[in-house]
Amino acid sequence: MLRLSKLADYATVLLVQLGQQDTLMTATALAGATGVPEPTVAKLLKGLAADGLVASHRGARGGYRLARALSEISIAAVITSVDGPIALTACVEGRVCEAKSLCALSSGQWDMVNKAIRSTLESINLDDMSRAHLTGGFAPASRCVAHDHHPAREG
Amino acid sequence: MLRLSKLADYATVLLVQLGQQDTLMTATALAGATGVPEPTVAKLLKGLAADGLVASHRGARGGYRLARALSEISIAAVITSVDGPIALTACVEGRVCEAKSLCALSSGQWDMVNKAIRSTLESINLDDMSRAHLTGGFAPASRCVAHDHHPAREG
Repeated sequence: MLRLSKLADYATVLLVQLGQQDTLMTATALAGATGVPEPTVAKLLKGLAADGLVASHRGARGGYRLARALSEISIAAVITSVDGPIALTACVEGRVCEAKSLCALSSGQWDMVNKAIRSTLESINLDDMSRAHLTGGFAPASRCVAHDHHPAREG
Repeated sequence: MLRLSKLADYATVLLVQLGQQDTLMTATALAGATGVPEPTVAKLLKGLAADGLVASHRGARGGYRLARALSEISIAAVITSVDGPIALTACVEGRVCEAKSLCALSSGQWDMVNKAIRSTLESINLDDMSRAHLTGGFAPASRCVAHDHHPAREG
């Protein structure tokens, strides 16, 4: 099982939502429309704007819009903007790596797997993703509280 | 950033090690040769044997060997054996999912991404991986204690 950061999942939801609107949307409106908490929406929009995926417009009627079409935003671009370069890691989230120079996942045998996954994710855009998901709304996966659990291999 | 389970990383290390031996190897010998803790080696070998990736031989001179060539073991088969079906998840490890039926990552928009990643991982075998990593030994990534950290997006 490969774990994606929740923020990267939320970012795709926000971008697809923006792509479905003709008007500018504020962080508050985006939070309301998607269910992603507003502080998280604000933080993500700031990063996505810095990476040129969304454009912000100031003023009383200000808000955010996509900087380019959904079909021109790859899922790789979204993940990279939110989480940094795409690479498999077996590391514990949130700590500083104590031995990066020794890390096999960052320096060796997984390189070709990382390259292949990166290339795959560069080939899929947000328009593909939203069209492929025709049943139900494009919603964050935040409600899925857990798992990664494989009972057969436990104990 | 995509997080792989440590066990899946360890399993690739064990399989490549077995593929480089002409003789049977015990769990103790494999632990010694790879640096993966012996209880983890024993647990992983049991699962890999159940899925037909390694064969066990009992007796005083018993041990494990690959059940098929490294070139016939895809990285997808290893991950699936250790972690279950390959799919992106944003979930918290180790808990039981409380709302799987509502989970967007398991049921909707990420399906095409999951399929593409699965297909990519099915196309790469352990022989490819071990050959691509010619500098240094094929070692577990366990020494890399952490990360997933993206300071620019914090706070």
